[in-house]
Amino acid sequence: MPSIKVALLGFGTVGEGIYRILNERKEEIKRETGCVIDIVSILVRDKAKERLATPGTRITDDIQEVLSNPDIDFIFEAIVGEEPAYTYLSEAVEKGFHVITANKTMFAKHGPALLKHAKFRRVNFGYEATTAGGVPIIRTVTNLLLTDRVRRIRGVLNGTSNFILTKMRNEGIPFKAALHEAQALGYAEADPTDDISGKDAFRKLMILSALAFGSQPNWQDVPVVGIDRVTIEDVSDASKAKLRYRHVAEILIDEKGLLHGSVGPVLIGPEHPLYGVDGVNNAIIVETDYLGALTLVGPGAGMYPTASAMVGDFLQMIGKHEKVLVTS
Amino acid sequence: MPSIKVALLGFGTVGEGIYRILNERKEEIKRETGCVIDIVSILVRDKAKERLATPGTRITDDIQEVLSNPDIDFIFEAIVGEEPAYTYLSEAVEKGFHVITANKTMFAKHGPALLKHAKFRRVNFGYEATTAGGVPIIRTVTNLLLTDRVRRIRGVLNGTSNFILTKMRNEGIPFKAALHEAQALGYAEADPTDDISGKDAFRKLMILSALAFGSQPNWQDVPVVGIDRVTIEDVSDASKAKLRYRHVAEILIDEKGLLHGSVGPVLIGPEHPLYGVDGVNNAIIVETDYLGALTLVGPGAGMYPTASAMVGDFLQMIGKHEKVLVTS
Repeated sequence: MPSIKVALLGFGTVGEGIYRILNERKEEIKRETGCVIDIVSILVRDKAKERLATPGTRITDDIQEVLSNPDIDFIFEAIVGEEPAYTYLSEAVEKGFHVITANKTMFAKHGPALLKHAKFRRVNFGYEATTAGGVPIIRTVTNLLLTDRVRRIRGVLNGTSNFILTKMRNEGIPFKAALHEAQALGYAEADPTDDISGKDAFRKLMILSALAFGSQPNWQDVPVVGIDRVTIEDVSDASKAKLRYRHVAEILIDEKGLLHGSVGPVLIGPEHPLYGVDGVNNAIIVETDYLGALTLVGPGAGMYPTASAMVGDFLQMIGKHEKVLVTS
Repeated sequence: MPSIKVALLGFGTVGEGIYRILNERKEEIKRETGCVIDIVSILVRDKAKERLATPGTRITDDIQEVLSNPDIDFIFEAIVGEEPAYTYLSEAVEKGFHVITANKTMFAKHGPALLKHAKFRRVNFGYEATTAGGVPIIRTVTNLLLTDRVRRIRGVLNGTSNFILTKMRNEGIPFKAALHEAQALGYAEADPTDDISGKDAFRKLMILSALAFGSQPNWQDVPVVGIDRVTIEDVSDASKAKLRYRHVAEILIDEKGLLHGSVGPVLIGPEHPLYGVDGVNNAIIVETDYLGALTLVGPGAGMYPTASAMVGDFLQMIGKHEKVLVTS
């Protein structure tokens, strides 16, 4: 039975999720694809740190040990931050590895260049997990674009912000207390700046813009407002008027082909499709010519949703050669 | 430039939608796939009937003229009802045509056999359009199944029923008046029995069951209740209690691997994910091991949503040979 050799870059929550899923679903994957998946090596920053036992897998802190191994076919990247991830993945693509990433900070900025490079090198590049975690928005938009034209995308792209706004409304607690709760539950980072400033939602919006419209607006032209200025009084006034605050990221293309983006808190009423999207969920509304509006709602983060999105990219890539081809 | 030759069986609303999309998107399809799509023939019941002009395409009422044409690669089927559609498609698969269908009545019953036959004959068989119109639920569940296990699927699968319940609530009009309005707007058929009895939602549920769980429950074991017994008093009592009626189809697998299905009106509160799904929309909630719940909401019917789902199946099939393959 052929074996497919993979390496993981990063072994935090998401990296561990990938490792777990590939092991838990070993038999199904064998049956479905006819391949054995072999996790050859895992790149970590600190080899001494205590972590999940991974028998048979080499733990290394040397990226060149991974990138110079000609046996490896696929690289899963689950590092945080722009660098060194971008440098690693550029080299990986150049050397002909297939790549799957969950790194939104890196991909929002370098995604277009990496995808171009990957196309040129004829390697697959998956990024479903960069945007909205377990919600398959990249695949859905990619498929819609086969037949249709996207006009507008908007949604709740940051689960932490949505959790905080939901807490403030449901429990009448101020922003800071809700943020502390999000941190205690592991939803917000130790430094939650990117979540609450709107920067994280902005990055995901730029990834969706590049996918749906083939380009991004100038970053500095997009107003980005976080939820940190929404007070408990604002939230309670809204509730009295049967309205809710949602942190909405939006990008649309006008009739001249110009892109308009915005990120910030928006007041919405009970008939709005985002009204019921509470807690850490993400939601995305895609508007197209033929379809009207399609809405997807699901978990925006978490070990298993994010890791399963990455494994989904991977299995789609290795499943391709099994399909029946058209002969004309 | 290679040309791909297709035939349409049926030229009602959906058939005409396919014809329009393939023509409207001719240039994009050429650019994306490198192929010219040639609509060779259209099967109709009555050749004399007035219809959209289709220059260069042969209009025929003889199925054998289509099925004996070795030039044709793909068949789009958009006929209503089990027969003769099933006979036509069985023969098409046997002869090696790739098939795309929107026929839910036929596919709920014969889908499993047709897919098995298609696999054996190594042809593609697309059925995205059979369930929830423009909502890409078949593709989404197919992809989820690569990495995950589905536990429960539930949703609003009949747009006509949902439209009627919405009208009754919003305008305080009785069932029969709301039904007449649905008919006047073209949402309900002249004979709306299948919609309002729950039979149509049941069929889509069986299609989803076969996909998600690999089998269907015994049809007679699934309780199916329509919306025709919901009175204006029921709806107004519900509204007073801040509840709404939704016609919900549900299928789940228990820990012993047994399937449990049900179809009928359900009372739900404001925090339920189906609460905001009004009008002719469809909505589906898929619950899996890794993801938790994923919800999709969109147009359940209509010329363009249904036809674009079929063209999506088609373009995915012909796009396959363009992908980079894994070499291991």
